[in-house]
Amino acid sequence: MIYRRVALIGLGLIASSMAHAMRAGGLAGEIVGTARSAETRATALEIGLCDRVTDSAAEAVEGADLVVLATPVGAMAAVAAEIAPHLAPGATLTDVGSVKRAVVEAVAPHVPQGVRFIPGHPLAGTEQSGPRSGFATLFHNRWCLLVPPEDADPEAVKRLARLWEGMGSHVETMDPDHHDLVLAVTSHVPHLIAYTMVGVADHLRRVTDSEVIKYSAAGFRDFTRIAASDPTMWRDVFLTNKEATLEVLGRFTEELFVLQRAIRSGDGEHLHAYFTRTRAIRRGIIEAGQDTPAPDFGRGSGR
Amino acid sequence: MIYRRVALIGLGLIASSMAHAMRAGGLAGEIVGTARSAETRATALEIGLCDRVTDSAAEAVEGADLVVLATPVGAMAAVAAEIAPHLAPGATLTDVGSVKRAVVEAVAPHVPQGVRFIPGHPLAGTEQSGPRSGFATLFHNRWCLLVPPEDADPEAVKRLARLWEGMGSHVETMDPDHHDLVLAVTSHVPHLIAYTMVGVADHLRRVTDSEVIKYSAAGFRDFTRIAASDPTMWRDVFLTNKEATLEVLGRFTEELFVLQRAIRSGDGEHLHAYFTRTRAIRRGIIEAGQDTPAPDFGRGSGR
Repeated sequence: MIYRRVALIGLGLIASSMAHAMRAGGLAGEIVGTARSAETRATALEIGLCDRVTDSAAEAVEGADLVVLATPVGAMAAVAAEIAPHLAPGATLTDVGSVKRAVVEAVAPHVPQGVRFIPGHPLAGTEQSGPRSGFATLFHNRWCLLVPPEDADPEAVKRLARLWEGMGSHVETMDPDHHDLVLAVTSHVPHLIAYTMVGVADHLRRVTDSEVIKYSAAGFRDFTRIAASDPTMWRDVFLTNKEATLEVLGRFTEELFVLQRAIRSGDGEHLHAYFTRTRAIRRGIIEAGQDTPAPDFGRGSGR
Repeated sequence: MIYRRVALIGLGLIASSMAHAMRAGGLAGEIVGTARSAETRATALEIGLCDRVTDSAAEAVEGADLVVLATPVGAMAAVAAEIAPHLAPGATLTDVGSVKRAVVEAVAPHVPQGVRFIPGHPLAGTEQSGPRSGFATLFHNRWCLLVPPEDADPEAVKRLARLWEGMGSHVETMDPDHHDLVLAVTSHVPHLIAYTMVGVADHLRRVTDSEVIKYSAAGFRDFTRIAASDPTMWRDVFLTNKEATLEVLGRFTEELFVLQRAIRSGDGEHLHAYFTRTRAIRRGIIEAGQDTPAPDFGRGSGR
């Protein structure tokens, strides 16, 4: 047992996976959960997701030695303000938001003396959401990035790291701005692009939606999987990681225009060289163990 | 048995999967294969991919009642010129290229009287390539689009459709220009975008390649899978489907700029509404049976 009582504020994919993973690993004495929506709380009760479900975040954090903010990033300032007077002295407060500078700015001002605020971000997810979507192995072999303030208590950071390791993650620390840039490249802009491409397909009159849907075997299928992720979470990501997103988007557009020009002018050498270089990154990802070299056999095709 | 002798010209992912699938279904009396590269031919022999492997395409097509062009699209005109004098009267000639207008223009002028040219395109693939990458179920539950000329022999079209159905595909016919536009949206532009995003990640100095690789759990991983596809094949796709690719790219950029503006101006409502609409297309794809609703658990994470 790493924490005596863990309070989960918000019961979506990440929090519900944490509940399953902490239970599976015997990492928490008691798991208390809450969510803004009564329906979510009722579902959590019905499936026995937590040991206790409370109606308010203030109640949930009473006596907890770890409090996890697992709401959309845009809601965290309000939640922090609500729970601040109820946090136990010595408790650790963390979050699982996809951006870190904005979370630090929204939450830190509310954190009382004696409470350790250590923001975090598990790099794991599926396109599913809600309290039924969690599973114990979501964090297995995935990275969790912690973003402790400079004056953080090293023991508190280690303890939180042990929790994530106990759930199967590798843990690394990083400063919030670098985190936001890395994530803009590896996750936020790719998501935006996938959303855009799915939107373009939807708007093209000469190709019907049903054709798009029927013939989406190749590339596009992966895009739709990405673009099916939770709209509220992603809205908040882009609003709160604006600077890095716009920088990476600018580079993306520039690079896309170069390829577009090569297509227009029929510059096959340029295209071939470009496409060859991208293979190397893919190999790196396989070697880093983030994916397998097994082909995507097209799930749903009977294998 | 649907064809007595099938000649496969080119032995990459699609042709090798056809060899496995035709054998599994007893669809061809004899499978003859050839490839430009001696190494590929040697591999095909070594793994027993075909009943016979010939050194030239001209030899391979002798006496075949079905000839399948499975080379990159850019090579098809030369192959068609080479095999034309050797095609058996009454034979069907088809291809598996990802674009159709350019294939028709490259191949049709070489097709002798009495040979039925019925271009085709199986919408199936993985990011693997080469003669070892094929497997019998690649075409299961996938679409194969046939693009018969207006004066095509209906019996020859039906027979080719039966072959694809025998390999597990659904078959539909379409005219070449519409095919190229549909594919530009569902496959070609998504691939180009994935290549670009992987390139941007590689060029961003403040984020190291090793960080990109380590932290690529979310969206980016799907992009790298797409971007690892065969460079020669994709170069040819973009050079030969230039018009539709540039049209769809133009729409994509326009739409991306609108989202970029919404991010810059902090228009959360616009973003949320956009991201909500894209979920519907995803649901359509699941309902159309092209994918499963199961979350992507992150292959390589032990499940």
